[in-house]
Amino acid sequence: MGKGRLETFSDGVIAIIITIMVLEMKVPHGGSLQSLRPLLPVLISYLLSFIYLGIYWNNHHHMLHAAQHINGSVMWANMHLLFWLSLVPFASGWMGENNFTTWPVVLYGVVLLMNGVAYYILSQLLIRLHGHNSVLAKAVGKDRKGIISVIIYIIAIATAFVNAWISYALYFLVACMWFIPDKRIENKIVNEEDKE
Amino acid sequence: MGKGRLETFSDGVIAIIITIMVLEMKVPHGGSLQSLRPLLPVLISYLLSFIYLGIYWNNHHHMLHAAQHINGSVMWANMHLLFWLSLVPFASGWMGENNFTTWPVVLYGVVLLMNGVAYYILSQLLIRLHGHNSVLAKAVGKDRKGIISVIIYIIAIATAFVNAWISYALYFLVACMWFIPDKRIENKIVNEEDKE
Amino acid sequence: MGKGRLETFSDGVIAIIITIMVLEMKVPHGGSLQSLRPLLPVLISYLLSFIYLGIYWNNHHHMLHAAQHINGSVMWANMHLLFWLSLVPFASGWMGENNFTTWPVVLYGVVLLMNGVAYYILSQLLIRLHGHNSVLAKAVGKDRKGIISVIIYIIAIATAFVNAWISYALYFLVACMWFIPDKRIENKIVNEEDKE
Amino acid sequence: MGKGRLETFSDGVIAIIITIMVLEMKVPHGGSLQSLRPLLPVLISYLLSFIYLGIYWNNHHHMLHAAQHINGSVMWANMHLLFWLSLVPFASGWMGENNFTTWPVVLYGVVLLMNGVAYYILSQLLIRLHGHNSVLAKAVGKDRKGIISVIIYIIAIATAFVNAWISYALYFLVACMWFIPDKRIENKIVNEEDKE
Repeated sequence: MGKGRLETFSDGVIAIIITIMVLEMKVPHGGSLQSLRPLLPVLISYLLSFIYLGIYWNNHHHMLHAAQHINGSVMWANMHLLFWLSLVPFASGWMGENNFTTWPVVLYGVVLLMNGVAYYILSQLLIRLHGHNSVLAKAVGKDRKGIISVIIYIIAIATAFVNAWISYALYFLVACMWFIPDKRIENKIVNEEDKE
Repeated sequence: MGKGRLETFSDGVIAIIITIMVLEMKVPHGGSLQSLRPLLPVLISYLLSFIYLGIYWNNHHHMLHAAQHINGSVMWANMHLLFWLSLVPFASGWMGENNFTTWPVVLYGVVLLMNGVAYYILSQLLIRLHGHNSVLAKAVGKDRKGIISVIIYIIAIATAFVNAWISYALYFLVACMWFIPDKRIENKIVNEEDKE
Repeated sequence: MGKGRLETFSDGVIAIIITIMVLEMKVPHGGSLQSLRPLLPVLISYLLSFIYLGIYWNNHHHMLHAAQHINGSVMWANMHLLFWLSLVPFASGWMGENNFTTWPVVLYGVVLLMNGVAYYILSQLLIRLHGHNSVLAKAVGKDRKGIISVIIYIIAIATAFVNAWISYALYFLVACMWFIPDKRIENKIVNEEDKE
Repeated sequence: MGKGRLETFSDGVIAIIITIMVLEMKVPHGGSLQSLRPLLPVLISYLLSFIYLGIYWNNHHHMLHAAQHINGSVMWANMHLLFWLSLVPFASGWMGENNFTTWPVVLYGVVLLMNGVAYYILSQLLIRLHGHNSVLAKAVGKDRKGIISVIIYIIAIATAFVNAWISYALYFLVACMWFIPDKRIENKIVNEEDKE
């Protein structure tokens, strides 16, 4: 089964998710500077979600680039990931509209957590398909970053009950950690290609 | 007539439908956990619709992959299918917002039924175009799954007048039945290619 | 200048326009069959607009397929066409919500008219670029269908002041006239290729 | 790292932004011609934003066409540009709904300014990657147009406090200045290719 149309479809869905998120920023009725004030948390929330979706698009791009082929399980694991990604605008909008109070911040963390889990399942299925000695398997490796992210998400969900801004800072920390494109995969591919 | 741009267009439309559906989940104003409660049926409805659209994308992908060429009739049969698929978010939203009461569940069933019929028309037109001995014709075969689905949809529409949750369970059953990518087409293609 | 990315961009925009149009069908609050009644004109309006956008996508596809190259003017003529196409959901929604009263039906006609004009400009610029003896020029020909459509639109705008349903019937008539993919272009290309 | 998927993703996002902008034009409830009056400024605002996004798409297209490869920094500079582009519908809607009063016009100018800055950063990172003697570097050149635009945006933001329509005229002026596809890049590429 070719991976081309899966890449195109995923790109399309992620591009739409990242863009419709801005629709949560409802145009205020008044024209004064004050009428923008309530939108500030929505903008901050939007910024973080935009970065997250950008990171997922980027990592997804790199991983599928290293993949040679896909199967039915991979296709559904990918749909599963897209489902959780599609809930980011909702969670982000709720968090922004409620000015980072506890439950919205918890929900946002849960959605991020599920995205992390879905991405992990997808990567493991791809590794199983390509074999543990494949370029892809070596490139993804032990996926320490992914495991650390999941742990931080769980901590952030817990801290939301104390102070939701700590949670937000932790979400931001994970985003920073992933900001740099996945050098592991890039380097490993280059190394493998050098050997041949 | 090339099939490339038809595939791209259909992928685009299905990707947009699957994503704008999440806009039916309106961000609640309150920040408490209780304010999420009314959204639970909307989420359940969204989940089912997401799976259905994923299935249609997948089967559509497989069928058009086996196709060699298209004509004007196929193009319009495809537009017809996209029309009914585009009504899924509306039917899904209405079903979710009304907590699975009778008429919304009936409408959802009718939309699913029409999608099934539209897909059937598309497959038959493709078979006629490629001949009854083509790889595509053998692969699609008698399309028993499609016929069974349509029968179950009709039963589900009827049961909605007794208990709408039975209907929902039946819709879910059909989804499970289609969950696995269309092995028939995949296998037949492989077999045909082996013979040559 | 390559035509590839222009085709992809246009396809994307038309796919989005055709899909967001369904968002004008707001999910009603009640769950009774009666609560769907006010949506019937919106659905009828949506159906017509869906067909129109399908026709534009199809003809656009055929014309650009016959094109060899584009330039800056063609690119902006294409943007001009996309602008008027993007107003179809608004005009369609207004017409549907007001149950086909005079002014909404007039506006819909004006938007269709401008789409027709924009398409005509695009086709003429493409012909000028490819020369009057090109395959594209012969294929588009005198564009009688296009001119007849524009005349019917003008008549329909006038009749809207007498009875808006006559106008709607005329819009539908034009849609039927265009329903069949542009055989002229297809045939001419085939003939030209046969000669060579 | 291939530039193909970046181009596709950017095209997708810009296509969606340009299209969802029309959703800011809410369908009025009444069916009279008067009920359209309040939408006139929204339409004027939409027209300008449509042209701007068309220009960005076009220039982005030309610049990435001249690029040979990309890296992580380019990818994030591109995401940064897409972020600011995604705020155009919001700023445009606010400006239109408030009939071009001071603050909305200022915000619109700030968003345009940030888009200009983001585009400049992207172009500089691409030049650094390809070397100062590359076709791309020569083509982009000193980017006088870009610098002039930024200066005009700043002036327009200032004049908004005197008369917002002057600002609007200035925004339109910049749009006109960019209307013509970037001949510099096109010509330079042609010249370079001639030399070889």
